[in-house]
Amino acid sequence: MSKVKLGAVPLVYPIPIVLVGTNVDGVANFTEVGDCAVMGIQPALVTISLSATHHTTKGIDNTRVFSVNFPSTQMLSLADYCGMVSGCDVDKGALFATFQGEHTQVPLIEDCPVGLECRVLEVTQIKHRRLFIAEVVECYVSDQFVVTIDGKKQIADLIQLDPIIYALDNRYYGIGSPIGVGYREGTCHKTS
Amino acid sequence: MSKVKLGAVPLVYPIPIVLVGTNVDGVANFTEVGDCAVMGIQPALVTISLSATHHTTKGIDNTRVFSVNFPSTQMLSLADYCGMVSGCDVDKGALFATFQGEHTQVPLIEDCPVGLECRVLEVTQIKHRRLFIAEVVECYVSDQFVVTIDGKKQIADLIQLDPIIYALDNRYYGIGSPIGVGYREGTCHKTS
Repeated sequence: MSKVKLGAVPLVYPIPIVLVGTNVDGVANFTEVGDCAVMGIQPALVTISLSATHHTTKGIDNTRVFSVNFPSTQMLSLADYCGMVSGCDVDKGALFATFQGEHTQVPLIEDCPVGLECRVLEVTQIKHRRLFIAEVVECYVSDQFVVTIDGKKQIADLIQLDPIIYALDNRYYGIGSPIGVGYREGTCHKTS
Repeated sequence: MSKVKLGAVPLVYPIPIVLVGTNVDGVANFTEVGDCAVMGIQPALVTISLSATHHTTKGIDNTRVFSVNFPSTQMLSLADYCGMVSGCDVDKGALFATFQGEHTQVPLIEDCPVGLECRVLEVTQIKHRRLFIAEVVECYVSDQFVVTIDGKKQIADLIQLDPIIYALDNRYYGIGSPIGVGYREGTCHKTS
């Protein structure tokens, strides 16, 4: 197979679309972010990256807390809008019904199926990118997306959560069909 | 809407499934990782997280380079297998046809549509999780997934790339349909 070199392009895919919330000068603000990942289950870690000069960055630097909210596809236009305009110019907190995290005063979005309340542990800046590594202190799930399996409350599948997915071709996508189960699909390759 | 609290759970979704490659004691090794994200376009940054004791972690600590390879759904069983067994016990480099990065000696997977050659910039450890922040020094794309738009070489859409998606319900998913374009869907909310 022949490979084409595209240069120094961070072509990670697919990219989860999230709305990062924080208070900036006491006002709730949300911005659309694709630079977000889980970094560990126990401890419960997430990382996000923002431009050092962004309005949201100022809020996280001051409060040391943020929320990560996962919009469903029916919220696509609002999510995209939050990436188009700055909280300096538009009151983006007013776009959503919100609630406060119980452990911090971070704002979360009521209509997002899942929201994470996060406390910053470490900050790293590389050129103009500011990376926040944070612990999740609470995970809020809208009740219709909670399922009980073997007596334990768990999250519904991605078909029901209906996330927004992004890629560096600048397109948004929906989720596809389930194709397998973790730690089971590879069993066929075991030699003993 | 009523919210259910699930505790300190890092419920980020959807999660991209990648195969992280490195040389461990001079032998190519690959492991399945979901803890991976783009952290910026310019500079081209990615971050991954691994358990501090893992075989791959030892290789990255020693070489300061790794690759991020994006398997398509037809590679699902091999990807899952790479997450089930350790490079201490199984020669996982032998599972794939590989090629070397031009800037480093990092191994990349021939059959993955996209592979990133990465050089570590910073390392952070939080409890047993070791986070590597890296710059992408080259992006390799299989030629059938490169499209030329306005004279510029770009990546094909996610339908063609056919990535593996994971979620914390321990299911794998395929990609769904395109649903919009970045910085366009939100235009309807502009007030002026």
